[in-house]
Amino acid sequence: MARKIQLTLLGCGGVGRQLLRHIVSTRKLHEDQGLRVAVMAVVDSKSIVLGEKNEELDDTALLEICLAKEKNNQMPETGKTFLSTILMDDHATFFLVYPTGRPLVVADCTASEKIGQALAEIADLNCCIVLANKKPLTSSFNVYDRIAALNRRYRCESTVGAALPVIATLNRLLNSGDSIKKIVGALSGTLGFVMSRLEYGESFSDIVRQAKELGYTEPDPRDDLGGMDVARKALIMARLMGWRINLEDVEVECLYPPSLAPKLMSTMQFLKEGLAELDLPMRNRVKEAAARGCVLRYVATIENFHCKVGIVEQPQQSALGQLHGSDNLVEIFTRCYSTSPLVIKGAGAGNDTTAAGVLADVLDLQDYFG
Amino acid sequence: MARKIQLTLLGCGGVGRQLLRHIVSTRKLHEDQGLRVAVMAVVDSKSIVLGEKNEELDDTALLEICLAKEKNNQMPETGKTFLSTILMDDHATFFLVYPTGRPLVVADCTASEKIGQALAEIADLNCCIVLANKKPLTSSFNVYDRIAALNRRYRCESTVGAALPVIATLNRLLNSGDSIKKIVGALSGTLGFVMSRLEYGESFSDIVRQAKELGYTEPDPRDDLGGMDVARKALIMARLMGWRINLEDVEVECLYPPSLAPKLMSTMQFLKEGLAELDLPMRNRVKEAAARGCVLRYVATIENFHCKVGIVEQPQQSALGQLHGSDNLVEIFTRCYSTSPLVIKGAGAGNDTTAAGVLADVLDLQDYFG
Repeated sequence: MARKIQLTLLGCGGVGRQLLRHIVSTRKLHEDQGLRVAVMAVVDSKSIVLGEKNEELDDTALLEICLAKEKNNQMPETGKTFLSTILMDDHATFFLVYPTGRPLVVADCTASEKIGQALAEIADLNCCIVLANKKPLTSSFNVYDRIAALNRRYRCESTVGAALPVIATLNRLLNSGDSIKKIVGALSGTLGFVMSRLEYGESFSDIVRQAKELGYTEPDPRDDLGGMDVARKALIMARLMGWRINLEDVEVECLYPPSLAPKLMSTMQFLKEGLAELDLPMRNRVKEAAARGCVLRYVATIENFHCKVGIVEQPQQSALGQLHGSDNLVEIFTRCYSTSPLVIKGAGAGNDTTAAGVLADVLDLQDYFG
Repeated sequence: MARKIQLTLLGCGGVGRQLLRHIVSTRKLHEDQGLRVAVMAVVDSKSIVLGEKNEELDDTALLEICLAKEKNNQMPETGKTFLSTILMDDHATFFLVYPTGRPLVVADCTASEKIGQALAEIADLNCCIVLANKKPLTSSFNVYDRIAALNRRYRCESTVGAALPVIATLNRLLNSGDSIKKIVGALSGTLGFVMSRLEYGESFSDIVRQAKELGYTEPDPRDDLGGMDVARKALIMARLMGWRINLEDVEVECLYPPSLAPKLMSTMQFLKEGLAELDLPMRNRVKEAAARGCVLRYVATIENFHCKVGIVEQPQQSALGQLHGSDNLVEIFTRCYSTSPLVIKGAGAGNDTTAAGVLADVLDLQDYFG
C-alpha cells in the first residue's frame, strides 16, 4: 500500500500548472518509493475542480486542467475524466466548499494576499501548508502566527530563491543552535540581471528594456524596481528567525523616484521617457563604486533586527561581486560560518524551478501521512 | 509534555563531544519548542555510559563525560550523576549491552569501519541512524543497503562538507524529480588550502608543512594527499543517486607516488625529504594551467555513472577557481540548474560545524518521536 499524500492546489498559474506536471512526471519515481501524491482539488480564483465522489484527480484530469488553463485561462467545465467544477467568488472561499479530510497538504501557488485568512483557517484545522506565495507570510501577524504555529507542518522554500535551499538551511542552522549573525542576499533575478549588466557600461534604461523584452520583469518593470518583492523575501527570513517585524519596518530603496510612480505615469510612458531620467545618476553611482574596486548589487541585508533592501557596493572579487545574470545568491553568517559565510547560489526564479521546490516541500511532509 | 528524541551517541572524540555540548547548550531553545534531546547512552571504543535505571544522562553527566574524555581519553568510571560505565571489547558490540528501546536515534560519530555491521543490525531494528562517519556508507552494499533501507529514518549530512546542506539538497532535488547531470565538488578543506596557496608561487612542500602546522591535516598528511577521504564523499553522493558502485570504482589521483607511501617512509621522513620531490612537477602543472588562465583544484567529479577524484584545471574566474582557503564548494548541475549550477559553499570541516550538522539531522527526525 502506497503512502498517500493528499494535496489541494490553490492557484493554477504558471507555478501551479508546472507543479501538476511535475507530479504527473514523477509518478513512477514516487511509486517505486511507495509514495503517491494524490491531488484532491485544484482551485483557481473562480472555481474549484474536484474528482467525482471526492476521489483524487487522475493524471488525465490534471493534464486536462493544465491545457484548459493555458488555452483560455479557465478551468475545464466538466471533463471526460470524472471531474466536477464548482464556481466560487474567490479562491479564498474554497475551504467552504472543500470537504476537508485530514491529513491534507494545501499548496498555495497563488500570488493572493487575501488568501492568507483562508490559510490561517486551514492551519487551525491542522492541515499541512506549503507556500510559494509570499504574501500570507508577510502580512499581519494575525495570519502569520496561525500559519507559523504549524511549525514543521508548513514549508515555504519556494518563497525565497525559488527551489534554492535557503529556508531549509536557515531552519537547520536555527535548530542546531547556530546563531545567525547576518544574511545578505541577492534575491531578485531581474535586479541581478540589471545590476550586473551596468558594469559593461550599458545604460540603466537600455538594460531594463532588454530585461522586459527577455520576459525577466513583471509586465510593469516598476514592480521589480520598487524592491517590494525583495523586501518580502527579507521579511520571511527575518520572521523565521523570530523577529516580530512587519513589511513597513523593512527599509526599501525604490529604484525610481515618486515622480515616475505608476499613479503618475503609464508603463509605456515610463519605459519610453521616465526610465531615461535614471541613466545619469545610475551611471555616476557605477563609476564611483568602480573607483573603489566595487560593483553595485541590489541586496537584502538582515542584521541586528534590521532589514534593509537596496543598492550596496560590493568588492568586485566578492561572491556577490562575481554574481552575474539572473542567479540568486545568499550569504549566511553564523557562529559556525563567521569569517567566511555559508553561500547558496543558483537560479532563483522560473516556474519549473519554483514548482520543483514546492514539490520537494510537499514530499518532505510525507511522514505525516499514513 | 515535551516530545523526547532518545539518542545514543557512538564515538566520543572531537565531534561526539561537541555534539554533547551542543545538546546541552540548545536545551533551553528546544524546551521552548516542546522538544527534548534525551541522551540515553554514550559509547566509545571501550565502554558504554548509561544513566541509572536506563534513564537519560543529565546535562551534568554529559559534561562530565566530555571532561573525562578530554582529560585522559577515558569515560568517567562512575559519576556523581547516576551513570554506570560498562566495559566492552569494541564499540561495535554496544548493542549487545544496550537495552534497545525504540524509537531511538543512533548517532555514529566514530571513524570506524567495523561499526557498519552494528549499524546494519540497528537499522534492522528500525531505529533512526545519523552518520558523521563515512565508512559505513562506503563499504559493502551488505551494510549500505540495510542502512539505506531506513530511507528517511537515516541522515548523513555531516559526511559530505560537514554541516553544509549538500545531502539535504541532493535529496530535495532527487525527490522532486529534477535529474542530476553532474556534481563537481571541492570537498577537502586541507586540499583546498593547499591547491589555492599554490597560486601564490609557494612550493607544494612548504604549503603542506604549513597546513600540518595549522592543524589542517591528518597526523600523517598523506591521509589527505591520498584523496581517499574525498573519494568516500563522492561515493556517498553517487550511491545517494542510486548508483551501484564501490570505493574501488572511484578513480582517485593520489598526490604522492608509490615510492613515498607510508609503507616505505615514516611521516617524519616524508615531511622532511619525500615531499620536496613533488615540488617541481607541481610547479610545472601550476604554470601550465596559468598559461591557459586556469588554476588547479582537487575536486570530485560525479557524472555519467563515473566518479573521479583528482586535480583538475579550473578557469580562474569560475566559482571553483575563486575558492580560497579551506572552504568547500559543491556545484550541482541538474535539469533546473543546467547552464548555471546550484552552488553551495562554506566551511566543510571542524568539530563545531560537523556536530551542528549531526544535531540538525537528529532534530530533523523528531516527527518519529511521540
